Amino acid sequence: MPHIRLPEGIPGILGPMAFSPATAKPINELAEVLLRGPNSLSRGEREMIATHVSSENDCYFCQTVHGAVAAHHLGGNETLIQEMKRNFETSGISDKMKALLAIAGKVQKGGKHVTAQDVERARQKGATDKEIHDAVLIAAMFCMCNRYVDGLATWAPADPEMYRQNGKRLAQEGYIHSTDHLPVNTGD
Amino acid sequence: MPHIRLPEGIPGILGPMAFSPATAKPINELAEVLLRGPNSLSRGEREMIATHVSSENDCYFCQTVHGAVAAHHLGGNETLIQEMKRNFETSGISDKMKALLAIAGKVQKGGKHVTAQDVERARQKGATDKEIHDAVLIAAMFCMCNRYVDGLATWAPADPEMYRQNGKRLAQEGYIHSTDHLPVNTGD
Repeated sequence: MPHIRLPEGIPGILGPMAFSPATAKPINELAEVLLRGPNSLSRGEREMIATHVSSENDCYFCQTVHGAVAAHHLGGNETLIQEMKRNFETSGISDKMKALLAIAGKVQKGGKHVTAQDVERARQKGATDKEIHDAVLIAAMFCMCNRYVDGLATWAPADPEMYRQNGKRLAQEGYIHSTDHLPVNTGD
Repeated sequence: MPHIRLPEGIPGILGPMAFSPATAKPINELAEVLLRGPNSLSRGEREMIATHVSSENDCYFCQTVHGAVAAHHLGGNETLIQEMKRNFETSGISDKMKALLAIAGKVQKGGKHVTAQDVERARQKGATDKEIHDAVLIAAMFCMCNRYVDGLATWAPADPEMYRQNGKRLAQEGYIHSTDHLPVNTGD
C-alpha cells in the first residue's frame, strides 16, 4: 500500500504525478528533452541508460516500463534489454554504450564514483562531451524517479503486457502528455 | 577539473546548466515549484530538506548553497543549519521537521528504505500527505542534482561569502531565472 493516499489503480510514478501535477509537469519535460530530444544517442540508447540505472536501483516499475520503451525503439528486441540488464559488458550493445553504461552505473552509486578513467574510456570509444553529460544526467534523473516511485511505495502491476503497451505508447507519443489522462489531484 | 569541457569559473550545477540549457529549464522549474511554490512547509523548511540530503550525499556545492538559502529564509540563522546538518534529531527544529528529515534521509539511501513507521511518525507529528510527498520528492530531486554536480566533477569554490551571496539571491529571486546570466552553451 502506498505511504500516502494516491488515486487507486494507477501504476508507478503516475500515482504521485496525479497527486502532484505541478511537479509532474517539469519532470515530464525533463524526460522529454533528455530521452527524446535531438541527440547523437538514439532514443533506444538513452532508454537503455534509464533502464540500467533503474535496474541497479531495484525499481521494478521504472526498469520494466523503460525497458519496454527501449525495446520498442529497438524494433521489439526485448532479448537485448534482458542481456543488457544482466551484464551489459557482455551484451550485444556497442563499446561506446558499454562505456556510457559504466559511467551511469557509477553515478547510480554516487556522483563521486565517476573517475577520469571512466570518462577517458568513453571518449576512446567515441563518446562526445554531450553524450557523457547526457549519460550522467539520465542516470541522475532516474536516481530521482526511482526514489520517487519507491519512496512512496507506489503500486507496480506484475502483468508484462501492461508494460509492453505502456512502453509502446511512451515510445510513440512521448512524455509531455503522458499524464493528461490521469484523474485530478487528490492531494491536500 | 570537470570531466567535460564546461565554461570556466562557473560554480557547481551552473556549469552543466550553461552547457545544457534545454535540460536546465525543467530542472529549475521543478526547483521553483517544489522549493518555493505554495506550501504548508515554509521555504526555509524545504531548503533544509535539500541541504540535509545534499550533506548526506557529501555534495559540497549543493549543501553549502542550499544551506545558505535556508539560512537566509530563516533570518540568517546559519547556526541552526549547522546544527541540523550535524544531527537534526538534537537540533532546534520542529518535531514534524525531524520526522520529515528522517524520511528524506531514508530516500537518500534508496526509496525502499522508507518504512510505514517512518511515515506514521511524521503523521503523528502533524505532517500531511502533501508534506510527506514533498519531502520524498525534494530528497529524490537532490539525489539527482548532487549526482549531476559531482558526476561531472564540477568546480566548487571554497569562499563561504560566495555561497552566502548566492543563497541570498536565490532566496530573493528564485530558480527560474537563476541561469539567465550564464554564457551560451559550449556543448557539442
